[in-house]
Amino acid sequence: MTADAGPATRVTPYTYSAGRLRLLDQRRLPHEEVFLECESAAQTAEAIRGLAVRGAPLIGVAAAYGLCAEARRVAARVPDDLDVALALGAERLVSARPTAVNLAWAVGRMRAVFEASSGGRAGDRVLRLEEEAHLIAEEDRLACLAIGRLGAAWLQARWAGVSGVPAVLTHCNAGALATAGIGTALGIVRVLAAEGPLTILAGETRPFLQGARLTAWELQHDGLDVTLLPDVAAASLIARGRVQGVVVGADRIAANGDVANKVGTYGLALACRAHGVPFVVAAPTTTIDLSTVDGASIPIEERAASEVVSLPLPGGGSVSLAPDGVSALYPAFDVTPAALVDAIVTERGVSGPPHADALARLLSR
Amino acid sequence: MTADAGPATRVTPYTYSAGRLRLLDQRRLPHEEVFLECESAAQTAEAIRGLAVRGAPLIGVAAAYGLCAEARRVAARVPDDLDVALALGAERLVSARPTAVNLAWAVGRMRAVFEASSGGRAGDRVLRLEEEAHLIAEEDRLACLAIGRLGAAWLQARWAGVSGVPAVLTHCNAGALATAGIGTALGIVRVLAAEGPLTILAGETRPFLQGARLTAWELQHDGLDVTLLPDVAAASLIARGRVQGVVVGADRIAANGDVANKVGTYGLALACRAHGVPFVVAAPTTTIDLSTVDGASIPIEERAASEVVSLPLPGGGSVSLAPDGVSALYPAFDVTPAALVDAIVTERGVSGPPHADALARLLSR
Repeated sequence: MTADAGPATRVTPYTYSAGRLRLLDQRRLPHEEVFLECESAAQTAEAIRGLAVRGAPLIGVAAAYGLCAEARRVAARVPDDLDVALALGAERLVSARPTAVNLAWAVGRMRAVFEASSGGRAGDRVLRLEEEAHLIAEEDRLACLAIGRLGAAWLQARWAGVSGVPAVLTHCNAGALATAGIGTALGIVRVLAAEGPLTILAGETRPFLQGARLTAWELQHDGLDVTLLPDVAAASLIARGRVQGVVVGADRIAANGDVANKVGTYGLALACRAHGVPFVVAAPTTTIDLSTVDGASIPIEERAASEVVSLPLPGGGSVSLAPDGVSALYPAFDVTPAALVDAIVTERGVSGPPHADALARLLSR
Repeated sequence: MTADAGPATRVTPYTYSAGRLRLLDQRRLPHEEVFLECESAAQTAEAIRGLAVRGAPLIGVAAAYGLCAEARRVAARVPDDLDVALALGAERLVSARPTAVNLAWAVGRMRAVFEASSGGRAGDRVLRLEEEAHLIAEEDRLACLAIGRLGAAWLQARWAGVSGVPAVLTHCNAGALATAGIGTALGIVRVLAAEGPLTILAGETRPFLQGARLTAWELQHDGLDVTLLPDVAAASLIARGRVQGVVVGADRIAANGDVANKVGTYGLALACRAHGVPFVVAAPTTTIDLSTVDGASIPIEERAASEVVSLPLPGGGSVSLAPDGVSALYPAFDVTPAALVDAIVTERGVSGPPHADALARLLSR
C-alpha cells in the first residue's frame, strides 16, 4: 500500500500516448464505449465543446493533453510554427467552454511551461509539455482521493449518532468521468461506500442526462448500486427525510464561496437548507477562482434550445420531445450562494462558512 | 357574448356521444393526434391508469363519461346487470389513480345520481347519468373561466407598478388538456395573455414531459408562444428575476391548504419563497378535500422505474436513458406546505394564508 492508496475506479475516461489523446466519448454512454482520437488542439477543443468530454477537472486534463498532441503534430512537421500553433491551440481550447475555470487554469499552466522552454529544441519542448500534462493529471488524481477522504469524514461526523443507512444524493456527474481520478463528489461517495452501507441517489440531470447516463454507468461499472431520480423528485425526498446529504461538484467557485455548477444545483441547495440536510460542494482548489469576486461575475453558458427539445438516439439521429418550433432556454449552470453551502471540500481541507475567509486560508497554505 | 364568454381554446381532449367516449391519447402528443375509443368503464379506467388521459379535473370528467359508456353498453345487452356493472365500473375507475381527488369525487357524484334513479327504466337511468356527466363537464368549463379571471386579476394586482413584460412559469400541464375548459393554471395564463404582453415559461416536467409535450402543444395550438425549460433551470431563473409568478394546478388540496401536485411543484415553491415571487395554485373547489387533514395524509402515487429510465418513442418502442439494470424512484407527486402557497385560486374565490380558514370559508359559500 502506498500512502495514497484508497478507493479506486475501473473507469478510464482518457488515455494519452505519444501525441494521441483518446477520449471516451461520453455522449455515447451508457450504450457504447467509444473513444475519440484527438491528434490536435482543434480536435480536442471540438470534443470539449461538443460535450464528448466534460467535467471541470477532466476538461482541464484533456486540454493539457490536447496541447501535447498539438505540439507533437506540429513539431514533427513544421517545428518553427510551434509557438504560433500552441498559442492558437490554447486560445481554441480556453474558449471551448466558458464556465469551467479549470480549463483556463490548465491551459495557462501549460502555456507557462511552454513559454519557459522558449529557445529550446522542439522535441524537448514537447516532452516538457507532456511531463506537465502528466503532472496535472496526477495532481488531479491525488486531489480526488484527498477530497473523497475529507468529504467522507466531514459527512460521517455530521451523521454521528444517526441510525439507519444514510442516503447521499448527487447531481450531474462529478465522478471518474469528470476527473483524472475517483471523482470529486463521487470520490466522497466512493469513500463512504467503501467504509459502510450507503444508499446512493443520483438525479438524472436533464437535459444532457449526466446522472442517468454517466453517474449511473460509472458507479455500476465499479460495482456500486445507484438509484436514479427525476431531478424534480429530489426536493420532496429531502423533505421526507430520505436524503442525509447532497454532494455535488463545481465548475467554478468564486472568492466569496458562491458556486457555479450544473443547473439544478441551486434548487438542491435550497431544499437542503429548508430541511437541515448538509449540502456539500466537492472540488479541487483549481476550481476556486479568487479573481472572480462572486457568483454574479461568473459567465453562465447558455446552450442551444435543441438540446432541450430533442434527445439524441443511441444509433444516431434524435427524437423530438416537444412540438416543432417551440423555443427553449437552457442555462447550463446555476449559481448557489455561499450562504447555502455547508462545506466546500478541497484537497487541502474543508471550507465552512463564512467561505470567503476559509477559502482564502486554504489557498494560502 | 354570454355572461361566461372569455378566452377560449381550440383544444378538445375528449368527445362523448351515445355511449362512445373518445379520449385524445395524450401519450401520443405532440407528434400525433389520435383518439382512443372507450365504450366501457374498464377501457376508460385503463386509459386513465395508462396516462392516455390525465389532469385531475379531466380524469374526473372522463370517469363520469366512462360510466355513461358502461351504462349504455350494459343497458343495451343485459339491463338487469346495470347496478352491478356500474358499481364495479365505479370501483375500477376510482382505483385507476390514487392521488387525484377529483376522480373519486366525480365517480361519487355519478353513483349518487345512479342510485337515486334506482327502480327506474334502464334507458332513463342511462340518460340521467349522461345529463350528470354533461353537468360535471360544464361546471368544470365554467370553473376554469372563473379561475382564469380571478387568478389573472390577483397576479395583475401583485404586478401593479412593475415595469416590463411579466413572465409566468408553469409546471406540468394544468390546461385544456387537463380539464373540460381552458385549464386551471393555463386558464390564468390564457386570461393574462389575452389582456396584455406576457412571457410564458413551461418546465418540461420530467419524466412524462407534460410541459414539453402537452403544455407546449396546447399553447401553440391556441397561437400562444411558450418557452420550455429543463425543470432544473427554474430556480435559477427565479433567482435572476426572470419569473414574476409561478402558476400550477393541483391534484389534491388538504383542509389545511397543503397542495399535492405533480412532482417538482414543491421545489418551485421553495424557490419562489426565497425570492419573493408569487406562488399560485389554481384548482376547482372539487380538488379541495376537507377530509384530508394535511399533506402528510395524501397518498403519493409511486410510478414504475421504467418511466424514468426509458423514454417511449413516437413510432413505438422506447429508448433507454440509463444503463440496463439501474433502479429508479418516481414519486409522481409532491406536497407543497400551505405556508409556501401565496394564493389558491378556485372558481369561488382566492384563498390566501392562513389557508385553513380561507378554504373552509370558500367551501361554505
